[in-house]
Amino acid sequence: MKKGLKLLDCTLRDGGYYTNWDFDKQLVKDYCSAMESLPIDYVEIGYRSVELDGYLGEYFYCPVYKMKELKGMMPNKKLVIILDEKNVGIQDIDDLLDPCVNFISMVRIAISPNSFDKAIPLAKAIKEKGFEVGFNIMYMSSWIENKDFIEKIPLIDGLVDYFYMVDSYGGVFPKDVEQIAKLVKSKTNCQIGFHGHDNLEMGLINSITAIDCGCSIIDSTITGMGRGAGNLKTELLMTYFASKLNWDVSFDKLSDVVADFEKLQEYHKWGTNLPYMISGAYSLPQKDVMSWISKRRYSIGGIVNALQEQVIEGDVN
Amino acid sequence: MKKGLKLLDCTLRDGGYYTNWDFDKQLVKDYCSAMESLPIDYVEIGYRSVELDGYLGEYFYCPVYKMKELKGMMPNKKLVIILDEKNVGIQDIDDLLDPCVNFISMVRIAISPNSFDKAIPLAKAIKEKGFEVGFNIMYMSSWIENKDFIEKIPLIDGLVDYFYMVDSYGGVFPKDVEQIAKLVKSKTNCQIGFHGHDNLEMGLINSITAIDCGCSIIDSTITGMGRGAGNLKTELLMTYFASKLNWDVSFDKLSDVVADFEKLQEYHKWGTNLPYMISGAYSLPQKDVMSWISKRRYSIGGIVNALQEQVIEGDVN
Repeated sequence: MKKGLKLLDCTLRDGGYYTNWDFDKQLVKDYCSAMESLPIDYVEIGYRSVELDGYLGEYFYCPVYKMKELKGMMPNKKLVIILDEKNVGIQDIDDLLDPCVNFISMVRIAISPNSFDKAIPLAKAIKEKGFEVGFNIMYMSSWIENKDFIEKIPLIDGLVDYFYMVDSYGGVFPKDVEQIAKLVKSKTNCQIGFHGHDNLEMGLINSITAIDCGCSIIDSTITGMGRGAGNLKTELLMTYFASKLNWDVSFDKLSDVVADFEKLQEYHKWGTNLPYMISGAYSLPQKDVMSWISKRRYSIGGIVNALQEQVIEGDVN
Repeated sequence: MKKGLKLLDCTLRDGGYYTNWDFDKQLVKDYCSAMESLPIDYVEIGYRSVELDGYLGEYFYCPVYKMKELKGMMPNKKLVIILDEKNVGIQDIDDLLDPCVNFISMVRIAISPNSFDKAIPLAKAIKEKGFEVGFNIMYMSSWIENKDFIEKIPLIDGLVDYFYMVDSYGGVFPKDVEQIAKLVKSKTNCQIGFHGHDNLEMGLINSITAIDCGCSIIDSTITGMGRGAGNLKTELLMTYFASKLNWDVSFDKLSDVVADFEKLQEYHKWGTNLPYMISGAYSLPQKDVMSWISKRRYSIGGIVNALQEQVIEGDVN
């Protein structure tokens, strides 16, 4: 099973949504040490970005000293950074990526289905610099209702290393994974990845299903640290591989790093809950659900009723 | 979908493992009110038991005044109590069940696969008193390696209302549910139930799979409150039914009772974690994993290594 299958841990990148991309130095050191000892291939360390308004921490910009330091602590891992297509244009690519060449193996792009066309030249520019390219299309749970971009998937052939199905809302079920993976495979020979969120506690079973359907790379984070309800938990994936497939997993290293992140979780409290379940089930951005609830403009029942009648204002997709 | 399918909430019974079966009066009142407004058929309120050593709270013994009070607060629900086969003999049945006749609709028995034969006369005695009978066989994740009792399943025909597959270790996956449900259905015409734990976050998908395989009744608890990693969460099941099957769910009532139990969860901290994942994946009693870790006799890695070599002393099943 391990042959061919790749794993990517993106704790610092996805977890940064809770810490504004700042992390304690000792925590990062322990994390890197755990990554080195676990059967994980790629470690995504953060974003690279043009300067945005407001304060954003080190792991949002990943300056050269940070990439160098992390590569020093994880010499045996392939390091990854991600670009957010909505903030980055083709004119930014040289500035953002030339400094990465010595440290970074793969550059991924986070892409809305509507921005598929705009992301193609970005992918080309990244590939020309010699990086592996991850093409991460978001909002998987609404792909079937919004199929236009599916026809464009053949454009990535020969250009992209991993085409990612990103379940941003944590809203897909194993049957959806099967259906969509089959559809994607009919459009491209590119390797396929799956990035699952855990709103409906489908992170692990969706990832297992994706692997069964021929996916080549799976994302996870320690303790599931990540936006809203969070991601597939690396420790759950490791336990599955160790128990079912006899992978050699260093549980003591894993246990130590999980304990470190659990301390942070006591403060930030990521993980699923009823509002996140609802946002997953109805493919609704979790920040909207949380903001509506926190403003007390709507009760949970009111939000759900409005959704069912499709009358809440704002961008549901 | 709702036609034929029954739901059972057992928050007080399974949650009692964390509170020694004591619950705050106002919390129980709010819980009963939520149950009355949700599409749940059965509410399991606790154990009935002969007196055991040491202090055990009201919901472990469910005295008559408690059953009466709860029935008064949930007049539209079928109330359920459970007997633990290892503590209860046929000679105790009159004393334990005669006082229940006016309040309780179903009596379940928690049964180790090895005690199948001993549980049959208990089921007969319960049925003769006019109760529905639930026959809850534990340790589902080790049934396939320990198949002897499977051949005895036909003995329950005509005697038992629900034959329950209980995933005590939270160790089964959807494929196991399919395989075992098919096997059970080949042995009996009795209605089948599924009681899932959440060690590997399989509670919901296993329950959906059980329903797809023809199971008639599913258990859950508010916030998943229950032994160790806990149960399928009632709010997750409700969100699934509301979003996928258009069930009419009172999300405000649900949200209020979830918030009440979340306060209790901050103290007791049920839910899965790495030790519970390991106990699920290896079908190991979670109390043993927790006790080994808390005594620091073994590291997590040491426990897993020993399990893989099957050298740890004690009852693994």
